Amino acid sequence: MPLTRFSISVDSKLIERFDTKIKTEKCPTRSKAIGDLIRASLVKDEWKYGEEVAGAIVLLYDHHKRNIVEKITDLQHDYNDNIISTQHIHLDHDNCLEIVAVKGKANRIKEIESVLKSVKGLKHCSLAATSTGKELA
Amino acid sequence: MPLTRFSISVDSKLIERFDTKIKTEKCPTRSKAIGDLIRASLVKDEWKYGEEVAGAIVLLYDHHKRNIVEKITDLQHDYNDNIISTQHIHLDHDNCLEIVAVKGKANRIKEIESVLKSVKGLKHCSLAATSTGKELA
Amino acid sequence: MPLTRFSISVDSKLIERFDTKIKTEKCPTRSKAIGDLIRASLVKDEWKYGEEVAGAIVLLYDHHKRNIVEKITDLQHDYNDNIISTQHIHLDHDNCLEIVAVKGKANRIKEIESVLKSVKGLKHCSLAATSTGKELA
Amino acid sequence: MPLTRFSISVDSKLIERFDTKIKTEKCPTRSKAIGDLIRASLVKDEWKYGEEVAGAIVLLYDHHKRNIVEKITDLQHDYNDNIISTQHIHLDHDNCLEIVAVKGKANRIKEIESVLKSVKGLKHCSLAATSTGKELA
Repeated sequence: MPLTRFSISVDSKLIERFDTKIKTEKCPTRSKAIGDLIRASLVKDEWKYGEEVAGAIVLLYDHHKRNIVEKITDLQHDYNDNIISTQHIHLDHDNCLEIVAVKGKANRIKEIESVLKSVKGLKHCSLAATSTGKELA
Repeated sequence: MPLTRFSISVDSKLIERFDTKIKTEKCPTRSKAIGDLIRASLVKDEWKYGEEVAGAIVLLYDHHKRNIVEKITDLQHDYNDNIISTQHIHLDHDNCLEIVAVKGKANRIKEIESVLKSVKGLKHCSLAATSTGKELA
Repeated sequence: MPLTRFSISVDSKLIERFDTKIKTEKCPTRSKAIGDLIRASLVKDEWKYGEEVAGAIVLLYDHHKRNIVEKITDLQHDYNDNIISTQHIHLDHDNCLEIVAVKGKANRIKEIESVLKSVKGLKHCSLAATSTGKELA
Repeated sequence: MPLTRFSISVDSKLIERFDTKIKTEKCPTRSKAIGDLIRASLVKDEWKYGEEVAGAIVLLYDHHKRNIVEKITDLQHDYNDNIISTQHIHLDHDNCLEIVAVKGKANRIKEIESVLKSVKGLKHCSLAATSTGKELA
C-alpha cells in the first residue's frame, strides 16, 4: 500500500515524553505509534456513526443452567448473517467462555450483544469493538 | 446453586423507569437485571484489583504485511500459559480478525494486549474483559 | 418521595461477594448500592438515547497561548443556552483548569465538547457525564 | 515553548480518512489533531500509573434529602488538600449539580470519588479525568 510522508510540529517536551512512552511499550517507530492512535480514533468513529464494523462478543455462563446452551445457540442462528463463527472454551467444570466473532452495522452488533445479554442464566457479556479493516489501511 | 431472597427499597419512580428499561431490553425479571448489574460491577473490580480474569484479545491485521503472521504466532507462544486458544477469521482478501482467548492475572492479560498491539503492521487491537466465572455465581 | 419495597432472588455466593464490596466501599445499605447501579445504568441510557442531560466539560490550557482565553470565552457565549456557569482554576503559573457546567440534549453537549476541543492551544478536554436528575428519583 | 518538527509515514488512505475527520471536527491542522491524540494517550497513562493529576468530580443530588448538604461539605473538608474549589448549580427546585475541582495523586482522587459516591441520598457521581498540565506541553 502506498505511504504518505509528511511533517508535523509538536511541543518538544511533548514528543520527548511520547518517545519515552513508545519505548516502554516496545513500539518500533513514531510512525507506527501515531498511526495506531489515528486508527484507534477512526475505529471509535465507525462505531459512533453506525458504520460496518467487526468484533467479538464474549459470553460467560454455566452450562448446567437449564436450556442455556440451546437458547444461546438458537439466538446465534437468528443472527447468522452477522455471526461469522464461535469459539467455545471450557474454563472449568462449570464455566464456559463463548466467543462470537461478528461483522455488520454497529447498531446491529449492539443489538446482538443486548439480545445475548438478556439470556437467563448468562453471567456476563462483553464486547471487543474493532473494524472490518476495509477502510483502515 | 442456592439462592438468597431479600428485600430492598428504592424510589418508586426509579424502579418504574428501570422496569421500562428491562422490558425494552427483553430482560425476563428484575432479579436477572439486578443480578447482571451486580455481576458487571464485580467483574470491573476483578480487573481493577488485578485478580484472575478471562477475556478475548481481538487483533485486526493484513496478512500480506511482511512477517506479521509469524510474529503474532511467536508472541502467542511466549504467553502460552495464559493463551487458551485462537480463532482466525478471513474478513476479506486482505484483512484477518484473530481472536485470542486469554485467562490469568489482569495485569498479565494487559501486558499480552500491549505486546501484541506493538507488532508492526497490526491495524487494531481490542480487549473484551470478562471473568473466569469462578467467583461469579 | 415514595419508596417501593420489593424482593429479588440472586445466587447466595454472589450477594455475599457484593456485601463485601459494599462494606469496603462504605456504602451504607444494599438498597443504596443497588439503587446506585440502577441509576448509573439509566444515566448511561439518557446519554445513549440523546435525552436531556447535564454534566461538566473540563478544559486544560496554557493561558499564555495566543488568544486562547478570548476564543474559549467566545465559543462559550455561542452556546449560552446550554452553558450554566464556568469555574476557572489557576493550576500553576501557566496551566488553567476551566470547568464548564452544561445542560441540554446529549448530542448538543457532545457538540459543545467537540467544538471546545478543537481550539488551537487547548491541551486536553474531558467530560463528566451525569443527569439533570429530573427522572432519576 | 519550543516546537519539534519531524516527519512520519502512514498509509495514504489512512491519512486521507483522518484529514476528512479533522475537517469535520473543525480541527485547524494535522499537527493539532495528532498532538491531541498524543496528549490524550499521555493523560490516560498519568491516571493508569497513579501520577499527579487533576479533574472534576460531579455530584448530583436532591438537597432536600436529610443532612446531605452537611455530609458532602464535611467530606470535602476532610480532603481539603486535594479539593481546590466547588461550583454549585441549582438545576431545578430539587436537583443540585455540585462540581468539585480536584488535584493530586490519581489514587487519592479515585478515593475521594468513591467516598463521595457512598453518601446516602446521592443520585449520581461522575469523574472528568484530566491532567495538571505540568508535563503536557
